[in-house]
Order: sequence, then C-alpha cells, then structure tokens
Amino acid sequence: MRILFIGFGNVAKEMSRIFIQRDLYPALNLESRVVGIFTGRHGGLEKKDGIDLKKVLDELKLNNRLTAAERELSSLTPLEAAKTLDYDVLVELSALSIEDRGEPAASHIKTALERGKSVASANKGPVSFRYRELKELAEKNGALYLFESAVMDGAPLFNFCSRCMKGATINGFSGILNGTTNFILSHMEKGGSLEEGIKMAQEAGIAEADPSMDVDGWDPSAKAAALANVLMGGNITPLDVERDGIRAVTPDMAQDAVKRGMRLKLLCRGWKDGNNVHASVRVEEVSRDDVFCLISHYGSAVRIESDLMHPNIIVQDCPDLLDTAYGVIEDLITIRDSLGLI
Amino acid sequence: MRILFIGFGNVAKEMSRIFIQRDLYPALNLESRVVGIFTGRHGGLEKKDGIDLKKVLDELKLNNRLTAAERELSSLTPLEAAKTLDYDVLVELSALSIEDRGEPAASHIKTALERGKSVASANKGPVSFRYRELKELAEKNGALYLFESAVMDGAPLFNFCSRCMKGATINGFSGILNGTTNFILSHMEKGGSLEEGIKMAQEAGIAEADPSMDVDGWDPSAKAAALANVLMGGNITPLDVERDGIRAVTPDMAQDAVKRGMRLKLLCRGWKDGNNVHASVRVEEVSRDDVFCLISHYGSAVRIESDLMHPNIIVQDCPDLLDTAYGVIEDLITIRDSLGLI
Repeated sequence: MRILFIGFGNVAKEMSRIFIQRDLYPALNLESRVVGIFTGRHGGLEKKDGIDLKKVLDELKLNNRLTAAERELSSLTPLEAAKTLDYDVLVELSALSIEDRGEPAASHIKTALERGKSVASANKGPVSFRYRELKELAEKNGALYLFESAVMDGAPLFNFCSRCMKGATINGFSGILNGTTNFILSHMEKGGSLEEGIKMAQEAGIAEADPSMDVDGWDPSAKAAALANVLMGGNITPLDVERDGIRAVTPDMAQDAVKRGMRLKLLCRGWKDGNNVHASVRVEEVSRDDVFCLISHYGSAVRIESDLMHPNIIVQDCPDLLDTAYGVIEDLITIRDSLGLI
Repeated sequence: MRILFIGFGNVAKEMSRIFIQRDLYPALNLESRVVGIFTGRHGGLEKKDGIDLKKVLDELKLNNRLTAAERELSSLTPLEAAKTLDYDVLVELSALSIEDRGEPAASHIKTALERGKSVASANKGPVSFRYRELKELAEKNGALYLFESAVMDGAPLFNFCSRCMKGATINGFSGILNGTTNFILSHMEKGGSLEEGIKMAQEAGIAEADPSMDVDGWDPSAKAAALANVLMGGNITPLDVERDGIRAVTPDMAQDAVKRGMRLKLLCRGWKDGNNVHASVRVEEVSRDDVFCLISHYGSAVRIESDLMHPNIIVQDCPDLLDTAYGVIEDLITIRDSLGLI
C-alpha cells in the first residue's frame, strides 16, 4: 500500500514509529510504503520506492527539518502532490480549521477522491463541514473516505456504530469529546486558573495549537457536527452547533460544583427533532453517579442511544498519540481489505 | 432467512415481538421466516411456510402452551429438529448448563454446523466449553457460529474486538459481567440480604433459573472463559476459571466498603502469562474513581486492554431483554450478509 502523507505532526510521527517498530505489534499485518510526505511548514518529500521513515524521524528530531537526502525534496505543494503523485491512500493529517471551513484539508481529500484514491484522515474539519459531498464523491469513484480518529482519537466510535449496530437507528448521543477542556476543568477543580490549564495542556502536546479551538468549543463543535451527520444522517456544520466554551468558567464555579457532589463538564449532545438533527456543546453539571463524572484529565466518553439497544457508553481512559495513530492505521487496514490492495 | 428456534424463553419472545413490530425499527431490514420452534418443556412446532409468531406469543401468554393449531405440533426432539428440518439458521437459546458442560445446546449447535447451517446463540455454555471445536467445525462447513449476546447481552463486545480493533492484540480484560450479582450487591449496600436480592432478581425475570449460576459465580465464569478463548486465543473452560461468588458477602461488608468510599463488585478478569491465558471471577473492592464503581443494578461494563490502544471501556447502563434479543438479531444480519442469504 503506497501512502501519501499530508501533514506530518505528532500523529504521523507516531504512525511512523509503529510502522518502524512492527515487531512490537504481532497482529499488525500491514505492508506500507510511504511515497510522499508533504507539510505546510517543512516542505515536501517524494520517493517512489519508499521514504526511510526512521531517517525522517531522526532528522526532524535533530534538525527540525524533513530530511538530509536532498534528492528526495519536492517542490510540489500538498495539493499538487495529492493531484499528481502515484499513491493508493492519502493520509490527511493537517490541522483543524474552522475559519476556512475545513480547508485546505477538504481540498486535499476531494482531490484524492476524485482520482479514485482512498483517504484516511484524523482531520475533523472536512468530515464536519463537507461529509455528504466527500462521501458521495468517494462512492462515485470507488474509493473510501474514513476518519475514525477524527472524534475520540482511535476509540472505534464511528466503527462501533456502523459495524456493530447493524439494523439499529441511532437517535442521539452525548459525550465528553474534548480532552483538553476536560483536563482544564479538572485542573480548575483544584483551584488552578484557565490560563495555567491551557499552558499545561499545550506543554503536554495535547491542546490544539490555537487555544480557542478547545476553550471556545470549536473542536467539540466540529466533533458533534461530525457525529450528528455521520451517525444520524444530519446535515449541519460546526457553525450550526449550539456552542458554548469554558471561558466563562471560574475555578470557584468548578470547586463549588464539586462541593455539591457534581462536576462541570463540557458536554456534546446530538438529538433528533422530527427529520432534523441538532447538536450542542454546553458546560453542564454532571452528578456523581453519572459515568461522565468519572472522566478526568484527557479522558473522553460517548453515550449512544438507539432504538434496539439501551444506551451503550464507550469510555476512553487516558488516550494519547498511540490511540490517534492506531485509529488511522485501522482505517488503512479497512481500506486495504475493502479494495483488495496489497 | 429460515429460522429454527431451539429454546423459546424470554429472549426468543422478545425477538418475536421485534419481528412482529418491525415498523418500530425503521433501519431493521431482515426478512425472516420461523420454520420451527422447539423447547424443552413445551414441545415443538414446525411449519415450512412460517409459523405465525403473534399467535404463538398470544397462546403462550393465555394458556402457557405453544399453539392452538394442532397440525403444526411436532413430535421431534430439539436435536432431531436440528438434524432433520430444512432451515438456514439455528437460533440456539436454551439455558446455560455448567454441570453438563454446555449440553444439550452444544450438540444442537454441532449438529447444525455439521450440516453447514449457521448458528446464532445467546447461550454461553457452548462458547465457553467448546469454542475451538465449534469454530473449526463452522469454518470447515462454510457456516458461521455467532454468539454476541452470550456476554454482556447485546452490547457489541465480541464484535467491538473483532470488527473494530483490526491489527491489535488483546492482552487482557476486566469487567462486571453478571447483572444479577451486581444488583444483589447494590441491594446489600442498602442493608438488604442476599436472599432478598436473589428473590427480587428472579421476580424481575433477570436471574438465571438456578441461583447458584449467578451467586456462585458460574455465569460470570462462563463469560470470562468465553472472552479469554475468543478474544485472547485461550483454551480454558469455566471450570478452569479462578472462581469466587458472592455467597460469603454480608450486608455489613458491602456497607462497610461504601463507608470507606469503595464498593464491592464481582469482577471478571482475563490475562496472559506467556502463551497461557487465565481468567478469574473475584469479589473485589473498587474505588470511587473507577468506572466500575458506577455500575449499579443490572448494569455491566468491560475494559479491554490491547497493544495498540489505551484501555477502552464499554458500559451498558441498564440492559434488559431488548438488548439480548438485538444481539441475536445482529448475528442474524451478519449471517445473512456474509452468506448472501435472502
């Protein structure tokens, strides 16, 4: 399977580490060759017979640039690479953009799908802004567009619903889907400030580069829109989500809730109103006997409501980059198996 | 799809209700014809062009017998029915037997698989005592042997691992997998006795007919063995599980744990020791910040450990017969789609 990376941040590095250290994962059976790596800030690399990922990781660590092998450097832009290179799957890992409504990632994905090339992406922008269009484009061109890691890291949330709930109709969901605000709220319960919490999350490499993506609820709004559209057939964007953030929460408020046996959580919800699907992101008080109350630090959880099962809740205790990377790899395995790639 | 029911208790009745009230479930697309119903206590029915399930449910409710249409009565035993009737899928729903090592259900299933007929079963006996043999038999004969509802009702636990964790190796699990003992322990925390708890669970129709299946940990041992064998490649039976029950727990002990901020839970665990897979069922103290602590009444939860994801926990809040029935129906949809049945 020939892979083109667009975006080569922490998730791509972790995927590369897994590819290199294959012996640690005895059941992982995935032959991959990375034929291109294109980034916004570090330029691009291209090599038909496969880029040496170990060299790339070492060079990034040592010199914060892509490679020493100059002959592999490419002058293509990421979009040109998606349009012209010879690859089987685009792994789209650029950062979320609300302002640009999922661009430029959406265009990278669209370009690949138009060529009948499949896409695995952890980027929640395109799936939350353009899901219907991209899905139809994939179907029309015999390709797959998968994005398990776009919500709840690699925890199989989309796949749980599509692969394990056959015949059931999903009527609603609720969940804690943004680890960073959850971490900050936990920190404020101990008296810490919003600013300290943001700084700690950024130092841990978990917060979005732009703090307002988390703090003002844009990241969870994108996730809520993605779930509403994919799981419930909705047709909304992150801009349609009734959105709240945690900027107005003070340490006093967080501590007061704890004193009353409650906790403040930034909850995403999706629901149906006739044929319309809605979503919200709100700070809510959660009681001590609710599973959501136990989600601390960077943890996440989602509760799925359907017509043929009582609610199931998927809880992810302490996700990190491994989980996000694995979600993309699971998508790659699905693409390989569905399309009969080698 | 032509279905043969062996066992027609609460789960089969709920499945029948769903089949009859199909308009309540808009995404449920399953054409089924029940060509036989065979029970241990109520005899058997057989009708090639499909048994009227509404009539059967009404008759069972009114007169506690299978049907008024005498010409449909069959003198076959359940095993003879599995061996001779013309059907596509055996739905095996007879009760768990530890003493008889999963019999007679295991023989019903074996007989169907030998004929190349697929099986959907909620019975944890055969999967915990004879999984390898039955799975190999199914593969050899081009049939499927599925049992999603055998553990954690219809919550997609087996399917989560097989369909959503591709490439990952499962290294361990822990969970609350017996709703009845969980209910009884919750009841004892309020000062109630073991005997009262058993009686209440039986009146709710949730407890196994033989209370020792739950109270002495046999039901969770069967579930732990099933998970160890199916998810982790183990080769153990319920008799190999390090087994504890809740008989020695007193209301004082349960209340004392609560006073210390803990709860007593009957926990199943599975783990690897080199190439060997082990399982246990033990009363353990669970702390207030553990998700398992929030599982009350008949709820269940399982935590799955693997090499490519941090632990994921699946929580089932308040399962009832709907969930178990749906799990079997999901198996039927899988069988239909995998084998191209109509």
